[in-house]
Amino acid sequence: MRHLLGIRGMSPEEALGILDEAPRYQDVANQPVPRVPILVGRTVTHLFMEPSTRTQASFQLAAKRLSAEPLSFVPKSSSLNKGETFLDTARTLASMAPDIVVVRSGESGAPHVLAREIPTAQVINAGDGISEHPTQALLDAFTIRKHLGRIAGVRVTIIGDLLHSRVFRSNAHLLTMLGAEVRCCGPPTLLPPGLDRLGVRPLLHLEEALEGAEAVMVLRIQHERMHASVIPSEREYYREFGLTMERLALTEGAIVLHPGPLNRGVEISSEVADGPQSVILDQVRNGVAVRMAVLAEIARSSPRSRSGREGADG
Amino acid sequence: MRHLLGIRGMSPEEALGILDEAPRYQDVANQPVPRVPILVGRTVTHLFMEPSTRTQASFQLAAKRLSAEPLSFVPKSSSLNKGETFLDTARTLASMAPDIVVVRSGESGAPHVLAREIPTAQVINAGDGISEHPTQALLDAFTIRKHLGRIAGVRVTIIGDLLHSRVFRSNAHLLTMLGAEVRCCGPPTLLPPGLDRLGVRPLLHLEEALEGAEAVMVLRIQHERMHASVIPSEREYYREFGLTMERLALTEGAIVLHPGPLNRGVEISSEVADGPQSVILDQVRNGVAVRMAVLAEIARSSPRSRSGREGADG
Amino acid sequence: MRHLLGIRGMSPEEALGILDEAPRYQDVANQPVPRVPILVGRTVTHLFMEPSTRTQASFQLAAKRLSAEPLSFVPKSSSLNKGETFLDTARTLASMAPDIVVVRSGESGAPHVLAREIPTAQVINAGDGISEHPTQALLDAFTIRKHLGRIAGVRVTIIGDLLHSRVFRSNAHLLTMLGAEVRCCGPPTLLPPGLDRLGVRPLLHLEEALEGAEAVMVLRIQHERMHASVIPSEREYYREFGLTMERLALTEGAIVLHPGPLNRGVEISSEVADGPQSVILDQVRNGVAVRMAVLAEIARSSPRSRSGREGADG
Repeated sequence: MRHLLGIRGMSPEEALGILDEAPRYQDVANQPVPRVPILVGRTVTHLFMEPSTRTQASFQLAAKRLSAEPLSFVPKSSSLNKGETFLDTARTLASMAPDIVVVRSGESGAPHVLAREIPTAQVINAGDGISEHPTQALLDAFTIRKHLGRIAGVRVTIIGDLLHSRVFRSNAHLLTMLGAEVRCCGPPTLLPPGLDRLGVRPLLHLEEALEGAEAVMVLRIQHERMHASVIPSEREYYREFGLTMERLALTEGAIVLHPGPLNRGVEISSEVADGPQSVILDQVRNGVAVRMAVLAEIARSSPRSRSGREGADG
Repeated sequence: MRHLLGIRGMSPEEALGILDEAPRYQDVANQPVPRVPILVGRTVTHLFMEPSTRTQASFQLAAKRLSAEPLSFVPKSSSLNKGETFLDTARTLASMAPDIVVVRSGESGAPHVLAREIPTAQVINAGDGISEHPTQALLDAFTIRKHLGRIAGVRVTIIGDLLHSRVFRSNAHLLTMLGAEVRCCGPPTLLPPGLDRLGVRPLLHLEEALEGAEAVMVLRIQHERMHASVIPSEREYYREFGLTMERLALTEGAIVLHPGPLNRGVEISSEVADGPQSVILDQVRNGVAVRMAVLAEIARSSPRSRSGREGADG
Repeated sequence: MRHLLGIRGMSPEEALGILDEAPRYQDVANQPVPRVPILVGRTVTHLFMEPSTRTQASFQLAAKRLSAEPLSFVPKSSSLNKGETFLDTARTLASMAPDIVVVRSGESGAPHVLAREIPTAQVINAGDGISEHPTQALLDAFTIRKHLGRIAGVRVTIIGDLLHSRVFRSNAHLLTMLGAEVRCCGPPTLLPPGLDRLGVRPLLHLEEALEGAEAVMVLRIQHERMHASVIPSEREYYREFGLTMERLALTEGAIVLHPGPLNRGVEISSEVADGPQSVILDQVRNGVAVRMAVLAEIARSSPRSRSGREGADG
């Protein structure tokens, strides 16, 4: 794996390889000094065009525990406001610190552009537009396998605004690729086209979607969507699609996942979020280990090429 | 000391223990490599819900000099805007990096909530609402003892908006606990109730409050308060409560403290702030050492428990 | 060199010394572990009063590769909003971490104030108002020498808003000091006085200015200026002063420099920016090495004085 741009493009073997490696890195967190020398001397740059406290912190911890040099590049109030293009920002960055770039962007496809245009960098997608969020899907799959013992054949129900969700897209690709049976449910106006092709079965009624589920993945409802009145109101959404204890009882004791941050009382009740079936905080914990496995795999597959680093002028 | 949530809850022995240890850490700053391996492998997370350049920098330097891994978690433009609750943010963080959390919040009591709800974390209060700012009080006490040779019996006068000041509250608790004689003065509308219980003597006239003082602590006047017209105007405040050279002459050659940042010409004149009796920059210098002592003490009292770190799902 | 406040004040020997040392540091970037122990135990504080993603990242990488402890101090939403003066901020910082301060400020002269008022700190100017940006000029000169083999006698043309450009000022000083022949061109309303004294020759017509040039330095047009209607419009600016392939053909195969970020289609065409004569990304790469050389030189010239560090109260 030279880059991790999306679940699309990954083979089942590559994905399972990450999941199999992750526990090693969870053990690292439990060492007296939680640090392994895998990325010594490599710079991991966090290029966050869209702010994200939790994903950025997770990647930063992962990079530090692998002994990388972290560099933050958050062009919030700076170059982007000055009208610089994304590509110029990325090239500038790659000229300084070309090893591994973890990129988050509101633009779908931004990590692909980076990987194509900057031959010296290795790119990890930390969320791009409504397209993909592959490390989230990997940590979700890891969490499901950890709690249920397997992924193949597991009945997973995904609930929410599927149309705008990169978490949904990455999870749908990964879970179906690994043999899970994926159902989904959400407001009809927010169902994306092509669900059949994804191998995901849409259901109109939440009750039907939940029946027999072993894992329920609740997506975050973006406030922005509500203000745009695609969704009637928080209260109505909760009434129709909110995951409550009553609804959870329809499943087969399913574990509950959520990518965070939570909207309590909108897409999920506090009782469910804090209840015994919730593995939401375990997802966060697993996220660091899974990201360590991804960073280590990326670093392994493409040993740092010094000639490449010098570029055309060096 | 498992946590440092406030001066309330500390024994005199614990407070003096910190003050006695701090000089060791001041020596560390003077080593060729100012770094000791006390926190190797521990993550110190800076959870700043309220921005604070100077307190955050002081804690970050302290953590680095103890060889900790610093992690910044400043949910400014991120999760909090997305409507996540403080507790969810804190739990997420604790799932990633559970060692020591340095928290600053506009909400009084936030560090206590954190300590109660997140059993795996150790919490240090870096300022919560109008409640406490314990490391500021410890560094103030350290500075007083360094310059005057003792705290017991020292006559300290605190001037300013006492009602809204967490610096005042923490200092009042600590100084009276250590036997100082604390007087205070400020606009009558900004005197908090319960001063007697605190052991602090309010005086109406600044001249009376300053007479015989050995240390004068000037509090910062928040611009916000003035706009809310609780205080007449900056000019009037200065005329009535500003610490000038003339007023300072009423003391017994008192040292002058201020937690910063300064409003020159509002609560203090530039002559006083930059004069020979000012120890304001020494407070800043001492702050790093005192915070190192606090971090080291916290780390010592509760050696990292790996089983705890794994949490319920581990 | 105790400080690097500007090119003014530097001798040709000092400047050439930096340029001669920089290649060593470029080699460091190519080591398996790109790190040398030159600044072990020193804190390099990045005091950025004005945001700058790229300059800050460049200095941070440089400091890290020299094994310094980086500390960020970006008083954006914090102390400065609280009304603290620049000098108080700087003194506070110097009391905590007095080694090397890299300062960027919208106020011309800010680094000089810092150096004068804080005897314990060493100051590097990372851009002050419209005055100087010395490390940019040094990396530009380094890049010119790398590609053309010399600086003395090289014909350099600088195009843009010369009046408001600190990059122009530092480059004009440095290039003329090192014997280059510097011409410039830009909107007549944006020509600064005293060009003769600088040894720079202004030309009214771009074509004339470009004729025979070996290096063309394109300055960034600030959007702010255009809104203030000092410049007619982006389109008109491009028509009169934009560097296009046609205009570049008037030079003697000149290399093209730009300090970034780029305004494509305003001061430079994309064809030129991405073309074979452009060394813009090489400037970025060289910037890290040149800044390493500056930091190392500063550190060498003034070996850390521990007694100084303690200050008056220590």
